[in-house]
Amino acid sequence: MTDFHVYDTTLRDGAQQEGLNLSVADKLAIAAYLDELGVGFIEGGWPGANPKDTEFFARARTELHLQNATLAAFGSTRRAHAVAADDPQVRALLDAQTDVVTLVAKSHSRHVTEALHTTLDENLAMVSDTVSFLVREGRSVFLDAEHFFDGYRTDPAYALEVVRIAAEAGASVIALCDTNGGMLPPQVTDVVGDVLTCTQARLGIHCHNDTGCAVANSLAAVQAGADHVQGTINGYGERTGNADLVTVVSNLQLKLGQQVVAPERLGRALHLSHAISEVTNVVPYGRQPYVGASAFAHKAGLHASALKVDPDLYQHTDPALVGNSMRTLVSDMAGRASIELKAKELGYDLTHDPQLAARTVKRVKELEQQGWTFDAADASFELLLREEVTGEPLSYFDAESWRVIMDSTGGSEPSLSEATVKLSAAGKRTVATGEGNGPVNALDHALRQALADAYPELAAFELIDFRVRILDASHGTDATTRVLIETSDENGSWQTLGVAPNIVHASWVALVDSFTYGLLKRGVEPRK
Amino acid sequence: MTDFHVYDTTLRDGAQQEGLNLSVADKLAIAAYLDELGVGFIEGGWPGANPKDTEFFARARTELHLQNATLAAFGSTRRAHAVAADDPQVRALLDAQTDVVTLVAKSHSRHVTEALHTTLDENLAMVSDTVSFLVREGRSVFLDAEHFFDGYRTDPAYALEVVRIAAEAGASVIALCDTNGGMLPPQVTDVVGDVLTCTQARLGIHCHNDTGCAVANSLAAVQAGADHVQGTINGYGERTGNADLVTVVSNLQLKLGQQVVAPERLGRALHLSHAISEVTNVVPYGRQPYVGASAFAHKAGLHASALKVDPDLYQHTDPALVGNSMRTLVSDMAGRASIELKAKELGYDLTHDPQLAARTVKRVKELEQQGWTFDAADASFELLLREEVTGEPLSYFDAESWRVIMDSTGGSEPSLSEATVKLSAAGKRTVATGEGNGPVNALDHALRQALADAYPELAAFELIDFRVRILDASHGTDATTRVLIETSDENGSWQTLGVAPNIVHASWVALVDSFTYGLLKRGVEPRK
Repeated sequence: MTDFHVYDTTLRDGAQQEGLNLSVADKLAIAAYLDELGVGFIEGGWPGANPKDTEFFARARTELHLQNATLAAFGSTRRAHAVAADDPQVRALLDAQTDVVTLVAKSHSRHVTEALHTTLDENLAMVSDTVSFLVREGRSVFLDAEHFFDGYRTDPAYALEVVRIAAEAGASVIALCDTNGGMLPPQVTDVVGDVLTCTQARLGIHCHNDTGCAVANSLAAVQAGADHVQGTINGYGERTGNADLVTVVSNLQLKLGQQVVAPERLGRALHLSHAISEVTNVVPYGRQPYVGASAFAHKAGLHASALKVDPDLYQHTDPALVGNSMRTLVSDMAGRASIELKAKELGYDLTHDPQLAARTVKRVKELEQQGWTFDAADASFELLLREEVTGEPLSYFDAESWRVIMDSTGGSEPSLSEATVKLSAAGKRTVATGEGNGPVNALDHALRQALADAYPELAAFELIDFRVRILDASHGTDATTRVLIETSDENGSWQTLGVAPNIVHASWVALVDSFTYGLLKRGVEPRK
Repeated sequence: MTDFHVYDTTLRDGAQQEGLNLSVADKLAIAAYLDELGVGFIEGGWPGANPKDTEFFARARTELHLQNATLAAFGSTRRAHAVAADDPQVRALLDAQTDVVTLVAKSHSRHVTEALHTTLDENLAMVSDTVSFLVREGRSVFLDAEHFFDGYRTDPAYALEVVRIAAEAGASVIALCDTNGGMLPPQVTDVVGDVLTCTQARLGIHCHNDTGCAVANSLAAVQAGADHVQGTINGYGERTGNADLVTVVSNLQLKLGQQVVAPERLGRALHLSHAISEVTNVVPYGRQPYVGASAFAHKAGLHASALKVDPDLYQHTDPALVGNSMRTLVSDMAGRASIELKAKELGYDLTHDPQLAARTVKRVKELEQQGWTFDAADASFELLLREEVTGEPLSYFDAESWRVIMDSTGGSEPSLSEATVKLSAAGKRTVATGEGNGPVNALDHALRQALADAYPELAAFELIDFRVRILDASHGTDATTRVLIETSDENGSWQTLGVAPNIVHASWVALVDSFTYGLLKRGVEPRK
């Protein structure tokens, strides 16, 4: 592994994407996935500027256990004519208690005078003071030179002076930012080359995709000598997004032979990219390079016959290297190999029972056609697998019926939703009614109440996450709904899934699976 | 206008995209849009190989009235050891009666022997014979040298020999294809440069996006001397897609100063890109460069205040040049400046009424605390703004109550959901019941039915998107729900928002806003 910096800014710059709104819990979950992918640095947010980000850094100290990555707090240089040590925003950066602080600074002379409304000299002093203050406080300081490329075009001497001053003050990386995203690769090559003739500092690159060249621009900078690359997972970001770190890292590693993350981590890129999109609730882009669902899918008859001869003739790389697989588009989705692998992970060996393997693959494919994806719902997959192995579904009770009623008077808040569940368990028929803020909450309460006598163990289960994805959203309110539930007890947490046109029905399926799996894992025998 | 070729292959290579299926009528509609955009060549399909494409060329002769573009038929070189004039597939190319025929030919020696199963010499004869036959028949022949870049790496002498033979036989363009899409710009630059030292032929470039560099690779080829660029609208295509012609043309014209289509045609790029996505039924990609809905949308408060000073400081180009416009997103990262900007976009000037501005900002911030985000719901924001300006909410009816009932027997599929709405409109109290696959679908149906007499205009509204986000999902089923609805009529589409603990209540709020906004925009007065 080279001393190359892969610097992720999904949690800060990525979060600027239209429609993307991350809670602190979302950010913590994403940070853990980023660490798993092997990025070197995770920019967590802007403490002080945003209470949510301040909370993120506070909770990260106890809740986030990073194995590879270093956390970075992002902020700006001190205010004009202030003292860095007294600037509340700079203090908030220290309070975040991260090893790395990334400072954004103006490097475009017109931005200094027209947007920041200060003098060119004062801006240089702001850079110098803030960097040296933070370095004295024991931080590694990275400088994001905002609008660097546009600035270099307008006033190269000033842009270079910002780089020089920052390096002199002790910044360990100077990232050149194409903030407006208007560059093309040859310009990036030229400017990075020029800057490297003037400085010994380590240079980084930060690109946006406004010309569709964020990935190529990032690579151009690296090939010109930058050894710190910034980007976001799945290219999230404002406007057209940032450089997609999944694609950049894959290209560096698989095309340019530069090992920047461990190969086994890159092999989980597809899984991690999709897991993060579950958290952001941004639908994965099928045509995303390397990890898109279509990235290795072949349709043309022209290719399909030749594919059998030698897939390498028609694939630019081995999809397994990023956790993807080749698909020919008649047979759908998951292949047998990945299902066998998944089963093995769960302790079921399907390789010795080809019929069982074939049956399971067939069932998974049928369900995938209807919108099920087991990627993020191991518990539901294990219940399905167990059913194929034992020949019957695991069932702790016999459901007779359920009903949910919601009403509202006028446009004001509705009254509590009411759910009634009828079922038999432990030899007894029970009718129970629950109330809740919404229909699923009411159903959850009713089901727990109906099962309380037969399975007091349920009291330990807590629903900690509930996600809804509308599939085929273009059908409006008539679309299919996928519900993902995460449940926890004192031993850990598990994910279950339900798919149906009716969101409450999909939730019911996921709820029942969640209780079933939880009871199974506690070793509870069905009492029917 | 230079003699540069913009060659579109949306109808042939683009149609290979997963999930894309074009009828002949679709293809004719798309061809007309492509012509309007000003592309020089439209590759219509592969006559003979595909009956749909044969029909397309037949109907195009009478139904398609191209003003700028020349139609091209696509096919392959003759079969091995056959006579070009007698090859049915080559005859079908003539029968298509296009001025241009584009022939795909192998240029990678391993593909010749292992996929085509013929000799290297015979492949050269196939190229030479087929090109010269079609030229004798009066066609302009373009040659697509398939897998050229991979072939050049394996066996450069053979790849170059294919180019030489084709040029000698009279091909007027030789397009070098990165068929597997694995190239990076520096390789493209080098190979195109090499080839140009060996031939006088006009070179073209055909890229796929597997490394995320299709656009950059296309530009690299042009800057190295190619003057024919192939691509597809919106980057449609197999796997990760082809080079997006919208982005390539915009870059050539706006970044490299090469005028390849008339500026007024480029000014319609957004409209044409979206019109074509209506035909293909592929949801437009919000982050698409230049023409994406988010391409010029600004969220960060950091930027919004400076945007007022000079938009060019924060925009890489003028969005009007591609028919797009700048948007400000109202979000928790934005302050008063961005709300004033947004209001101005919508035609409300808040700068002269500081109290109104302050009141609106306060209300937006309060709602954001509860989980509302207006950045993807302009219509809801405009209704809120209008209410602050006029002092009262716009209301087309008085809701009295609504109720939704869902039930299910056992674990099987539930019965239809049932919703009842009671309201008064046009001086009349109405009670209406609707059924649906799910609760929101049922409520939508009931509300439409209740309002049908008072507002027949509602029939034009179609719900085209429905998205649900669980906020603070860690509260499980007790979390807050945000529902985003997109509605369209013949004039366009609009987004509305609802937030509530109960998903059905949140949907009700978004539905009512969607109907209210739609009626407002049609100039319908409330009939109460």
